[in-house]
Amino acid sequence: MAKNITPRESDYSRWYQDVIKEAKLAEHAPVRGCMVIRPTGYALWENMQRELDRMFKETGHENAYFPLFIPKSFLSKEAAHVEGFAKECAVITHSRLIQTDQGVEVDPSSKLEEELIVRPTSETIIWDTYRGWIQSYRDLPILINQWANVVRWEMRTRLFLRTMEFLWQEGHTAHATREEAVEEAERMLEVYRVFAEEFMAMPVVTGVKTASERFAGAVETYCIEALMQDGKALQAGTSHFLGQNFAKAFDVTFQDSQSKVEHVWATSWGVSTRLIGGLIMTHSDDDGLVLPPRLAPTQVVIVPIWKNDAEKAVVDSYAIGILTELKRAGIRARYDDREQYKPGWKFAQYEVEGVPLRIAVGPRDAQNGMTELARRDTRTKELVARGALQTTVLGLLDTIQADLFTAALARRDAQTRICDDYESFKRLLDETGGFIYAHWDGTPETESRIKEETKATIRCIPLHHPHPGPGFCMVTGKPSEQRVLFARSY
Amino acid sequence: MAKNITPRESDYSRWYQDVIKEAKLAEHAPVRGCMVIRPTGYALWENMQRELDRMFKETGHENAYFPLFIPKSFLSKEAAHVEGFAKECAVITHSRLIQTDQGVEVDPSSKLEEELIVRPTSETIIWDTYRGWIQSYRDLPILINQWANVVRWEMRTRLFLRTMEFLWQEGHTAHATREEAVEEAERMLEVYRVFAEEFMAMPVVTGVKTASERFAGAVETYCIEALMQDGKALQAGTSHFLGQNFAKAFDVTFQDSQSKVEHVWATSWGVSTRLIGGLIMTHSDDDGLVLPPRLAPTQVVIVPIWKNDAEKAVVDSYAIGILTELKRAGIRARYDDREQYKPGWKFAQYEVEGVPLRIAVGPRDAQNGMTELARRDTRTKELVARGALQTTVLGLLDTIQADLFTAALARRDAQTRICDDYESFKRLLDETGGFIYAHWDGTPETESRIKEETKATIRCIPLHHPHPGPGFCMVTGKPSEQRVLFARSY
Repeated sequence: MAKNITPRESDYSRWYQDVIKEAKLAEHAPVRGCMVIRPTGYALWENMQRELDRMFKETGHENAYFPLFIPKSFLSKEAAHVEGFAKECAVITHSRLIQTDQGVEVDPSSKLEEELIVRPTSETIIWDTYRGWIQSYRDLPILINQWANVVRWEMRTRLFLRTMEFLWQEGHTAHATREEAVEEAERMLEVYRVFAEEFMAMPVVTGVKTASERFAGAVETYCIEALMQDGKALQAGTSHFLGQNFAKAFDVTFQDSQSKVEHVWATSWGVSTRLIGGLIMTHSDDDGLVLPPRLAPTQVVIVPIWKNDAEKAVVDSYAIGILTELKRAGIRARYDDREQYKPGWKFAQYEVEGVPLRIAVGPRDAQNGMTELARRDTRTKELVARGALQTTVLGLLDTIQADLFTAALARRDAQTRICDDYESFKRLLDETGGFIYAHWDGTPETESRIKEETKATIRCIPLHHPHPGPGFCMVTGKPSEQRVLFARSY
Repeated sequence: MAKNITPRESDYSRWYQDVIKEAKLAEHAPVRGCMVIRPTGYALWENMQRELDRMFKETGHENAYFPLFIPKSFLSKEAAHVEGFAKECAVITHSRLIQTDQGVEVDPSSKLEEELIVRPTSETIIWDTYRGWIQSYRDLPILINQWANVVRWEMRTRLFLRTMEFLWQEGHTAHATREEAVEEAERMLEVYRVFAEEFMAMPVVTGVKTASERFAGAVETYCIEALMQDGKALQAGTSHFLGQNFAKAFDVTFQDSQSKVEHVWATSWGVSTRLIGGLIMTHSDDDGLVLPPRLAPTQVVIVPIWKNDAEKAVVDSYAIGILTELKRAGIRARYDDREQYKPGWKFAQYEVEGVPLRIAVGPRDAQNGMTELARRDTRTKELVARGALQTTVLGLLDTIQADLFTAALARRDAQTRICDDYESFKRLLDETGGFIYAHWDGTPETESRIKEETKATIRCIPLHHPHPGPGFCMVTGKPSEQRVLFARSY
């Protein structure tokens, strides 16, 4: 294993931090709870953005941009929303600094009449805006997404998983009917599932949240839930059917084709840089990051090996030929010909950074028309003839993508259990963690008792249940319609 | 002219607002000074971002992300920077809201120990971070760009041109030598010039700012300056050579190849959503927006014309064939088959929205294998045979792009004058505005006197001077090395 990375077994949380540090993905900023996303981490986010953005546009959405600041009073307009968001947040109270003998000070005379909040989410300001855009059914649906930064004042932070400021996208749609809005919320959940499984190679369970875990202001919260290697769950994305709650709070009505005036139906949905945390914890190992080829900023790195100028000339031209061919085939390839680093150092570095494929070429390879191809995920190597290289690389990238998903799915399934008795449930959580399907009587009281006693929460009521059928609550013995998914979570 | 748009001649500033409103580019947000960028405006920004991002990456830059919040004390570290930025800004003083009988209130107990500033620009937090990244010459150069939102508390705001929050990119690079940093600042200025002229079709003058107009903390500020139709200048982009100022303020040193420890050299450079304001004011007319094809979200719109279902069927299949062919050729084409709007309404709408080319197709066109092609910029129409359509469209998009630049250049040149006498200078400014090349004695006193007396500023000392040679200051009669560029500005 890599020398600067703590093994998962000895300290999982330390391992996670080490991987991020050694792969140069991100670091803590001088402002508590904020992070700096370094170029490698940001390139990963750009690849995720590009695929998600394409999927949003293919499903008819457009991007727009709404203000960073929300008037304090907006938060109080929706009764449930205020409970959820009018608490820990960044509050702007003044608009000027002045220089004094003691340094830079806040100018007391610049106090704002109404304080501004840095958006923790944008439902309020967006629905205030939609009021001006919607008069008739002809103005509907509105299908808008925003890529933005948001701020939630968190006490305990962890890079990517929970930071005070994070990057995300938030979709906000407006519809003429309840059915259309529900359909939209479910459509976007499916987009998230496909993205998680087919691009991140991260298997997820789709479901709906219980009332107590719902988004503040939602009628129904759909979610995708993933399981990390340490047996803890990660909520990876949510899609909310908001009913008419925000339309009522911000007085957004429309005239339908029969000239009847009604409140508009809404959804919102989002995923964030938290996904990067999920990606790291789904595939990486004690040697560092492992990345699925579809999202890896560099898919193939070519490392030259030579001892003198004559060898260098031969290897260089051979490697550049390979680079050109791979790039032309649409592969994100990189040739690392930096002379200040030795090949061994480079091998170790790209392993830590999770580059899916490494090609090493020396003078003898150039002579024989061969290349040595090494997979990051399995550590297997093979010799490939130069003429077959492009086809082999393209095939291997697909294979690695599929293998990573299969391995992650097998890990998750091995960590997923059915449990019908509360004592075993508690023991399972302490001993192995993981997903547990169990019966629950449907009451918030039992849900909250389980949470207090075990720290496990209901991750979701699954949409496509692997173990359907009624039974009896493991805690109260009361009837239960179906098992729900429990886990301790991030 | 369009009925909802005030003509330029009667009220230029009103015309600008009307064009933005009718083309649905943006609107004022409920928070004073902030704006909502609507989907059409944001699609324009996405096209600008895509081209700029490509150019940044082609010149070796990577993207990253730094925090939104800056500790107040950071602003005081660089002596000149504090003068420029420690004034009007958004100050975060508290981290919690509580619900009371009076509604949502700021929790006094959540007062921060040190106030945070919403970034007005990121030099300070980035150079604080670079200190951890740079030890040796091997770590240099660092070539990083960030796409972000920034906040400057402005009193008088105008959509796109000056808003409290705006979107921008900010490049921040670190170098081992002065020469390399100067070269970088000049390289990025050239990237901006190429983008402005070749994509926005907006001619610009490149130059350096005088000391009093320099970025706070810069040794040299390079800029591109454009001239709007009303004769006022717009600073469209800046690139700063920062010397070692921020490296010294944040103690960022490196060991060179001879093991000597030195401070790092820096640049920063940025363009913002202000460019959209420049784009609007460069090309648009009394009928609304005019967009250069390379940036237009929709390059070609196809409008069907029919009277009954039989005609609709014929026209529909004809139009869809055209749409498919144009899209396949990489053209951003749209088929507007919405039935709730009449063709005349659509014609007017796409005129206001500045779609470069409109194709109208009726049943007779489908029968005869013809199409009617109309240009937004010149209002000319031509009949084109179906078989020649793709080639004609591709050619016309190039022609329009070139024609818009030529027209803008001619307008600018007609509004550019040489003036060697202060009285004529003042009269010119009042009568016609525009760019004026005039001699200046090089002192801040004279510069500030001219500004006070005429509201004109030195836009730049041009790099490639159209009227070179020494002379005498128009105000003081003292010797001047070369004429500099004056204008009233946005």
